[in-house]
This record gives sequence, C-alpha cells and structure tokens, in this order.
Amino acid sequence: MLPKARVVAGEEGDAAGMPDHLVVFTPSGKRGRFPDGISLLQVARTLGVDIDSVCGGRGICGRCQVEPSFGEFAKFATKSDPASLSDLAEGERKFDERRGLQQGRRLSCHMTLQGDVVIDVPASSQVHKQIIVKSAEDRKIEIDPAIRLHYVTVQEPDMHNPTGDFERLAMALEQQWGLSDLECDLRILQRLQKELRDGNWSVTVAVHREHRITAIWPGFHSEAYGIAVDVGSTTIALHLCDLSTGAVVASSGMMNPQIRFGEDLMSRVSYVMMNPGGEVTLTEAVRAGINELIETVCKDADIDPMDILNAVFVGNPIMHHLLLGIDPTELGGAPFALASNTGLTLWATEIDLKSNPDGRVYFLPCIAGHVGADTTAVILSEAPHRQEKITLIVDVGTNAELVLGNNERLLAASSPTGPAFEGAQIACGQRAAAGAIERVRIDRQTKQARYKVIGSDLWSDEDGFEDAIKEFGVTGTCGSGIIEALAEMYLAGILSTDGVIDGSLAGETPYVIPVDRTFAYVMREDETNPIRVYQTDVRAIQLAKAALHAGARLLMDRFGVHTVDQVLLTGAFGSHIDTKYAMILGMIPDCPLDEVKAVGNAAGIGARIALLNKGAREEAEEVIRRVEKVETAVEPDFQQYFVDAMALPHKTDRYPHLSRTISLPEPKKSVLSQEEAGGRPRRRRRRLSGG
Amino acid sequence: MLPKARVVAGEEGDAAGMPDHLVVFTPSGKRGRFPDGISLLQVARTLGVDIDSVCGGRGICGRCQVEPSFGEFAKFATKSDPASLSDLAEGERKFDERRGLQQGRRLSCHMTLQGDVVIDVPASSQVHKQIIVKSAEDRKIEIDPAIRLHYVTVQEPDMHNPTGDFERLAMALEQQWGLSDLECDLRILQRLQKELRDGNWSVTVAVHREHRITAIWPGFHSEAYGIAVDVGSTTIALHLCDLSTGAVVASSGMMNPQIRFGEDLMSRVSYVMMNPGGEVTLTEAVRAGINELIETVCKDADIDPMDILNAVFVGNPIMHHLLLGIDPTELGGAPFALASNTGLTLWATEIDLKSNPDGRVYFLPCIAGHVGADTTAVILSEAPHRQEKITLIVDVGTNAELVLGNNERLLAASSPTGPAFEGAQIACGQRAAAGAIERVRIDRQTKQARYKVIGSDLWSDEDGFEDAIKEFGVTGTCGSGIIEALAEMYLAGILSTDGVIDGSLAGETPYVIPVDRTFAYVMREDETNPIRVYQTDVRAIQLAKAALHAGARLLMDRFGVHTVDQVLLTGAFGSHIDTKYAMILGMIPDCPLDEVKAVGNAAGIGARIALLNKGAREEAEEVIRRVEKVETAVEPDFQQYFVDAMALPHKTDRYPHLSRTISLPEPKKSVLSQEEAGGRPRRRRRRLSGG
Repeated sequence: MLPKARVVAGEEGDAAGMPDHLVVFTPSGKRGRFPDGISLLQVARTLGVDIDSVCGGRGICGRCQVEPSFGEFAKFATKSDPASLSDLAEGERKFDERRGLQQGRRLSCHMTLQGDVVIDVPASSQVHKQIIVKSAEDRKIEIDPAIRLHYVTVQEPDMHNPTGDFERLAMALEQQWGLSDLECDLRILQRLQKELRDGNWSVTVAVHREHRITAIWPGFHSEAYGIAVDVGSTTIALHLCDLSTGAVVASSGMMNPQIRFGEDLMSRVSYVMMNPGGEVTLTEAVRAGINELIETVCKDADIDPMDILNAVFVGNPIMHHLLLGIDPTELGGAPFALASNTGLTLWATEIDLKSNPDGRVYFLPCIAGHVGADTTAVILSEAPHRQEKITLIVDVGTNAELVLGNNERLLAASSPTGPAFEGAQIACGQRAAAGAIERVRIDRQTKQARYKVIGSDLWSDEDGFEDAIKEFGVTGTCGSGIIEALAEMYLAGILSTDGVIDGSLAGETPYVIPVDRTFAYVMREDETNPIRVYQTDVRAIQLAKAALHAGARLLMDRFGVHTVDQVLLTGAFGSHIDTKYAMILGMIPDCPLDEVKAVGNAAGIGARIALLNKGAREEAEEVIRRVEKVETAVEPDFQQYFVDAMALPHKTDRYPHLSRTISLPEPKKSVLSQEEAGGRPRRRRRRLSGG
Repeated sequence: MLPKARVVAGEEGDAAGMPDHLVVFTPSGKRGRFPDGISLLQVARTLGVDIDSVCGGRGICGRCQVEPSFGEFAKFATKSDPASLSDLAEGERKFDERRGLQQGRRLSCHMTLQGDVVIDVPASSQVHKQIIVKSAEDRKIEIDPAIRLHYVTVQEPDMHNPTGDFERLAMALEQQWGLSDLECDLRILQRLQKELRDGNWSVTVAVHREHRITAIWPGFHSEAYGIAVDVGSTTIALHLCDLSTGAVVASSGMMNPQIRFGEDLMSRVSYVMMNPGGEVTLTEAVRAGINELIETVCKDADIDPMDILNAVFVGNPIMHHLLLGIDPTELGGAPFALASNTGLTLWATEIDLKSNPDGRVYFLPCIAGHVGADTTAVILSEAPHRQEKITLIVDVGTNAELVLGNNERLLAASSPTGPAFEGAQIACGQRAAAGAIERVRIDRQTKQARYKVIGSDLWSDEDGFEDAIKEFGVTGTCGSGIIEALAEMYLAGILSTDGVIDGSLAGETPYVIPVDRTFAYVMREDETNPIRVYQTDVRAIQLAKAALHAGARLLMDRFGVHTVDQVLLTGAFGSHIDTKYAMILGMIPDCPLDEVKAVGNAAGIGARIALLNKGAREEAEEVIRRVEKVETAVEPDFQQYFVDAMALPHKTDRYPHLSRTISLPEPKKSVLSQEEAGGRPRRRRRRLSGG
C-alpha cells in the first residue's frame, strides 16, 4: 500500500498542519511532506517520480539509485543535510560490495526519511529514461519496451486455499507491480512450478505489454534484450539492444542469403512462380540468415539467446512477406496486393527465430504493394508527421520510396528508378566495393577527371595514388561515382542540358572520344580496363533520376507545393550520395542545399525505435493508416512529369535555390528528340525495390 | 444496411401512417410493418428474430428456411395468404434441386414481402437453437459455439487504395456480419491470398469468439466440428460434435495408453519422479491416444480432421497437467499445488492435436489439487448452482470427488476411497468385463445367492444360465457386484452392523464357511474358481464407503445440513451402481431413494456443453472461483466422521428415508473394536483419483 502524500502546493509548508519532512526530487521538482522513517522509493512512487526498479525494492537490482543533495536550497525553501537520511543500510552495503554503488549514490528502496531532503534522480535510474537516436535531427526516444522484467515474491501454496501456482504469481504481480488480468504462455506454465521452487518462491518474469507472461527465471534476473532487424533484399542488418538502457550492445550484417535465388526482388518472385514451393525455400533462407546473425551478436555481446525477448522486423513488402512465410507472388504483378497492411505481433517460434521461443516478434506494417515496412520505419525515424516543415524523404534503392509531407498530411509512393543508381545498367558500373570510383571532379578547362576510389583516401592526381590502389586497381564506378561524374560532366560543359555528350569536344580534348555513332567520356585511360562514361550510361541515369524526380513532383503536386523545406536521403545508397551532386543532376526537387541531408539507415533506426518504445508501434500504425498512397504507375500525370524530368537543371528551370549556389549552364540545343525521351518509360518494366 | 422497422405495438396498425405490410414471426411473436419487396431475412434481422445463415443470404447454405403460415389469424389481427409472398425464386429452385427444400418451406433470404404474412421459424433454422442434453434433469443447451463460420464476399484489391487482403476481408466481415476488430492467425495469413483468389473473392472463414480468424476455405464451406474429450486415468472418451446442430456425429473411447506406465495415477506420478523426462513420455502417450481417437471418429463420420476447429478437454488434475505437458510431480504430494486453476485456451498445435492446427483448444479449469476439470464438467452438466434443492454429486472412481450445494453455495472435496469400489483389493474382485458378477440377491432364509454376470441377461438360478456363460465363465465380482453382495449379506443377516461375517451361521448354512480365524460367504461354489466374500473384502469396502460418507458428511456439516435433497452418482462406476444398494451400504447420506440417481458420464456431458456453448465456459470458471474447496486430509473432523461411518446403516441411525423404504436390521453387537476401525485411516495413503 502506498502512503498518502500531502503534496506541497506553495513554497512554504504549513508547519502546524505538517509536522513531517519535506522531500523534493530533482530534476522533476516533485515534492511533498512525508512521515519519519518512510523509504525514499515509497515517497517517489507516491509522488509519481519516475524511478526504475526490477526487484521491487529488495536492494538487488540497484536500478533505484539516487543522489541526495546537501546544503541550503533557497529555491525549495529548505536545507538538506546527511542527518535527513538513514545511515547506509545493510542491504546497501551488500549491494555496494557486490556491484558497487557510485560515489554519493544510495539505494532509494533502503534509505529512509529522517528530515527535509533534496534528492536528485539521475537519468539512468528513470524507468522512462530517454535516449538520443541519431537521425536527421537527433531524436529523444523514451525507453518503454513491450517487454518488462519484474522480480516478484509469490505466496506458497496452501491446501486450504488451493489456487494454482500461476494464479498466485498473477496475484503477486498485481499486488507488487499493479499488473492485472495477466495471462501466461503454455511454455511458461510448463516450467512455472519448477522455477518457483528453484527460486524459493521468488522469480523474475518478463511481461509483454503488461498483459502476458512470456518468460520466467528463478530468483533475480536482470537481462532482457531485443533485436531490431532491417531485412533488405541485398543485406540484412541486425542490432542487439539492451531493453532497459536502450543501448545497442552488438550489431551485425550479412548479404541476404536469398541472393542465390535472384539478385533483385523481381527475380526472386519469378523463382517462386517457376518453382512450386519456392517460397518455402526463400523463407527458410532468410530465417536461417537472421538466426546466424542472432548467433553472431549473442557471441559478440556474450549473452544468452534465451534473453532475447522481443524483436522488431522491417523490410520491403516482398521481404516482409517471405520472412512471414507468405507467398509473395501477388506482389509481383498488378494490383500488387499485400496480404496485410497491419502491424503484426507473433511468437518467435512462428517464424522459427532462435531466440527465446516465447519472445514476441513485431512486424511494422507495410504501406502499399511497393512501399514496405522499411518505409514505415523511415517515417518513424525521421518523423515528418511531427514537423511543420514539408519534408521529402527519398529511400534510394532499386526502386525509390518517396514520402512527402508534414504534421498535416503525409503521402507515399514508389518510383521505378531501376537499378542504374546502384551501378547496374552502367557499362563500367559496379557495386560499392574496393576499387570503385566514388568521387569525381572534372577540370573545367582540360576536361580531365580526377577521382577517388573506395579503399584509398587519395585523389587520383595525388602522389602515391597508384601505389595505394594497386592491390585492387580501379575496377569501375559505383552509384555515387557515376552521379558525380555526370554532374561534373554537365558543369564542365561535356554534357548538354538534354544529357548528350558533346561530340564537338572530341577534337579538342582526349577525354571525349567517338564510340559507334555517339561519344564517350574517358575518366581513366587504362589498356585493360578503361573507365568511361558512355552515352547509354547517361541515358540510364537520366531515366532513373527522371523517375525519381517525377515521383517527387507527383507527390508535391498532390500536396499542392512547388518546393519542399527539407530533403532527406536514406537507404544504403542514399546515405552515400553527395547531396549537392544529386541536386545538380536533378534527382531531387529544388530545396535549400543545406536542407538536403543524407541520414544513413533510417529504416534500421526506425526499427530500433519501435523496439525500445512500444507506443511508437501504435504511432507508426496510426500514421500509416492516414498516409495517402500514390501509385505512380497508374497516375496519368506521371508520364509527362517523367518526360519533363529527363533534362538536367539549367538556368531557366525551377531550381532557384540550386541556381543561387551553383552556376548552372545555359540550356543547350536539344539533341534528344521528345519521342525518344517519352517513348522509353512506357516500355519500362517495373522492378521491385530493394532496401 | 438494415431497413428501419416500424415495430407494431398494439394489435391494430395505424392504416393511415403504415401503408406497408405486417409481418408476424412465430413462435417468437415478433412483428413489424415493412415495405413491399423487402426480403424476409432482412425483416427477421431488423426485428431481431433468430434466423441462422452461414452464406449471408446468398441462397447457398439453406439454413434460413422458414415456413409461411396461411389463413386467418385473429390473434395477430391479420390474414396471411400465398399472395403475400413472392413466387419461388430462381435461387430457391436451385437450392431445392441441389439439396431439397422441405415441403412448405422457403428460403427467407430469397423470398420477398408482398402482403401481410405470418412466418414460422422452425427450431432447426435458429442460430441459437436449443438441444436437450441428457443429465439428471434433461437440460436445454443453447447452441452457441466458440467457433462460427461466415461466408463472405471480399472486395478485390485496388492499386488506388492499397489495403491488404486481410484488411479487406476484415472489412467485409464487419459490413456483412458485424464483426469488428478482427485478428488473424499467421497460418491463415499465409494461405489467405490463394484462398481468396481460388474462391473468386468469396470465402468462408471460421471466427473464434467473434475475434480471430482461425480457418479459411475458398467459396462456401459449411462443415465445422468440435470434439469433447474426457481424459480419465483409465479410459479416454471422445465425442465428435457438429458445431452447428450440436449433434454427436461419432464417439469413440480407448484405454488411456499411459496405463503401461502405471495402473493408477499415483504410480504414474511415481514413474515421472523416478524417470527424468518421464512426464514427456506420458504426455506423448496421452496425446497419441487422443489423436488415434480423432482419426477413428473422423473415419467413422467421414469428415476431414481439418474441419475440427474446436476441442474441449476435461480430466482429473494429473491428466489435465500431463496432457498440457506440465510435470505432475507437485500433485503427488502435499500441498498438491496445481500449476493453474484457470480455464485455458490454446492452439491445437500447442498440444500436438491432429485436428485443424489453428483450431482452438479449451481446458476447463481444475478446482483443487485433487478435484479436477472433470468435476468442473460434472458441475456444468448437473448444474447444482442453478437449483434451489441441495444436491450431492458423487463421482466414484479411485478417489471420490464430491460436490455439494445449490444456487447459494457450492462445496467440493475429494475423498480417499481407494480402489476397492473398482474391484481392486477384493479377493475375487475384477474390472467390469464379461464374466464379472454385477447383480446379487441373497435368499433371506437359505442364505443362498443368485446373481447375474456381465455378458448374460439370465440370473444364475434361471434355466440355461451355465450354457449362457460357458464361453467366459464366472470370473469374479466387479464393483457393483461386491456392493450388492455386501448389502444383501447385511439384509440377510449374514453381516453385522459392524461389518462382521456372522460365524454362528457356519453350522446352519453351507454358504458361510470358516477361513483362517474369520469367515467367508460363498456366492458361487466352483472347484477351480470359487467366488467368495472374505472378511478382508468387507473391511476394504467399509473403509472405502466410510471415506466417501465421511467426505459427504464433512461437506454437509460445512453447508449446515443433516440431509440433502438429491444425490447424483456419476463416473464410469457411479453410473452402474444400483442406488438402493449404495444407500443400504451407507456409501451416501440419507435421502429420499427416488432422489438418488445414476447420471452416467456427467463429465463427458459437461465437456460437450462447454464445446457447444461458449458462455458455459465462463459460467464454469465463474462457478469454480466461488466453490469452497474442502481438503479432507487436513480437516480435523474428517477422522471422526470416518470412524463413525464404518458401521452399516441400522434402525437407530440417521437414515429416516432409507428406513421407510427398507427394513433395516437392528444393530448387532460390535465385533470390530473402535481401535481397529479408527486406526486404519491414519496409515492409509491417499491414492490419486481416476476419472
């Protein structure tokens, strides 16, 4: 039973009516008068001061540590001195010996009141402590996981009152932790009697959403972990988090083992269509990969996989379905119907997860057939729905997922960019790996390129470059390299506004050479492996960036704006692009350049947020419900926007912010016919997005 | 959308304001005025008339059949004629061809209103139809299972509004069946997309408790079955029921395969204690047995095990725990702690049931460590809590479970009778099987016995008896035989009030013979296998009946009554006892003899009730919570009551009702010392009850 508090309203207590001691908690400022001898944890509970405890005031967990402040506190009209508190108790001494009390700290559960006192509650002792999550703007996340541990002492059985062990456990949890109407997994019921007796009637239980007991340990147990998993079509990334501190204690990643059944998503759907039962093979492959990652992070962090009690998964719709064991065939063709667009909570065993079998698994909801739970996670991470400024989020992969909006409206779409941004369909293109050109600068006069490759910090014109790269050589250009190459070619006058390599330069510079009936730009001359940009490469990138830009413009149109306040680039590729060059190329709409940011793996961050804060799951589900889904493929305007977006930004174009920063070229006479530009997209086949 | 009804309050409609047609439903008497052309099913829905439908008015299921009544109805102030209804519709004709419409019946979904009409709804067309369940008093059970089928047409997916298939299914179920906030099992989600397309966007789903979709079929599906299983320590009985009609379509039983690990419960608990992991072996054995029964009944009734969507299990606490995979060791010794005393709902897969994997399984709650879910089922079947008269229910097995009370209070206990009633501990005792004596009459003068054996309808003194039994012989006496033998010996003056065989008769009749220092009664003389009742047999039955009687008296004491209004005997054995002899022997307290009834397998009936009516589960849980549990082993009065109950009822005893029916003997001088009678029970080891 909690004591009744007399909460002090004004600065001064009424001495006559209140003979007891004044307690003030900082930083909350909560205060009240309490009788002599009461425990400080009780005082805190009564005042609603947020102090953590797993052991329920038994001096075991050490989570309720506070720091008494001594001296005169004019602000609180009180004086606090060591005599206001009981001496170090036996329980505190034992805890200090066992696990060490920090200098100046005490266990609030073992310290009693003897006079007026000011008590500081450090952030680490709060249940709902906040952690900062890195995203475009550092976000504070309140730690409030779906699983909580509770240490509890259970009444022994009594023949005269033959309630079951479970019912007595539930009663104890109600009395000691205020948890009512508890349910219990069968596997827990099977172990319950032994654990209660092994723990001499004290056990620690994990409770899911204040409702269902999902794990039990004899005695005191303080380990509870969760995993946040971003299942991309190319890579799987897993973070192991401590559910009480929110800290990432280990991370690991791997290539998605499904790759052997098809590089991109569409080829995996084809695999399923061509091979009856193929979806089972793909499901088993991705689940095995995740279990391998679980093993790795548990080994790295030296924890028991049985202590993994919660998991959050995000991924594009096809990954989402395959991991759940749902045949993704419907996502391979119009109307691209999802099996479900709701968040799902399952048992770990239902997807064969090698964590605690009763651990709960949560899948963030998919938004539409092409816009997955990874995009939901991106929204959770970047929170455009909480901001007034209009944000455009671009997750660039094989397709681009686009989210546009603010706290009033949110729109989402997927745009069929194809894999050009990832280096595919580019003559010298390659995945981002050692030897790939990732940075390019072109001399405006000589037209000669200098570049940097992955694996070396030197520019190609710096001393020692050839030495530094000799182990791997210069093997091609990755996505960011081709974007910078094209943008620099444009700025250096090699590329026209229409995206045509200027053949008239072929006589003037050795870096432009004729190839068949078009021209190519030579980035690196090399007898065995020259790195060149061909006219077809320019076309491929133009098509991709036009699709991206058209998708963004469609959303902006729907939103009713001509410009956005902020552009965030995310995804494995998006976070590596130099935002300036993305804009010079016209991938994204005009925006103040310092408001274009690469935000890293926002989907993974969103998954972590949903893991650490259960309310974020409801928030995501609620936001997703009101997101306006735009299907680019069937929007009549998309085609025209696509054609319009083929050209590169120039002086008369709608790039006021960009024009102010960069000296954009005058438009050059078109060499590319409207027919050619407009004819292509109709024949393009949608490629399903990777993540 | 349902039409607004104008429900008629009085006999006469206001003709001016109500130009439409009057519809009266019988037998409910519900009535209202409705516009021309409306379907009769819609009218019924609007008025809240209970008419079944699985197909939702599509003319497929035929469950909404009604019988229009024609003629003058003074009572309803109306005239009803064939012109009041539309002609037989195409859909009705088709249904009639396919499945046959009964004479005079119509499909209410396809018949429209054209004039005033009186419509009779036959019982078979009601959703909440009632069936009669045989128990002490025939009980009406309303069919209201936890699983219901719903045929539904789902909107096709649309790229412009990319909701998931599940969400569109849920929306359709809300619009067409009023089911909201539906959830879905993962296995259903995995099959959902295919079934929807196979069914051309019409599917039938099974919904558990209006909340969770647990099965799906393309198109229309009308089969939904459930099983009610009574898991006894000796036998397992399973009933396969049609969840829509409530009918038992097949039944099967078998010996509990756990018997090879121990005949009685205590020896099975010992097996678990001695063999680590032994509980897994026992769990697998009982689950395999149940799966074998499922296979048998499915074959018998020619149904697909996938159509078994719900199961209810009852059993004593040890069977209950073992079937759930819970180690029963705690139930083997004081304080006999149950793992749980709450009703449990699980997936079929959680107990490896070979029915539909997503079928739901419900375990009725156990009451105490010795009083199981089988007793809960007995309460549900006999419903003492719904009656004013005070009922004593006795479930006689290895132990006896006792329930006493009425609609004000209910008490329960288990009494350690031991296995004597089942023929064990009796020299010539045996299980009830062909050749076992089950009926006995003794000539008051000659003291000669005549008897009947299982397997023949003849008495032993009838012509042809020896011929009739020669295939199996007379091998021993079963429980009911030994009870009748003792009672007849008592009435014939062979047995004293104290239970001593009168040796003074040894000279007078050949049927009483000396054996060691006591005497025996000869029921059948036979050189190889004589059937005799020894003094030790009498003692064994006396101890058993004293335990039973003492338990009943303890409960009556607690309840504050000296007599009960009704005694019900149940259990495999209890239902075979001749109630008169049970009373002559003093097994049960005094009661009007015609108020003592053998009610058959009440536990199995209770399981069926819980299967067919989900509300009965809550009723059972609620009743069980307030049952007062009496632990005989620790009740100080039990010992004395036990000693008092050793003697057989006689003229000065508390058997007023019995005395009026039977001429009870005068008490004979005691030959049995108080010490002997009182000393035994203290040394007796509790044997855990069978069911």
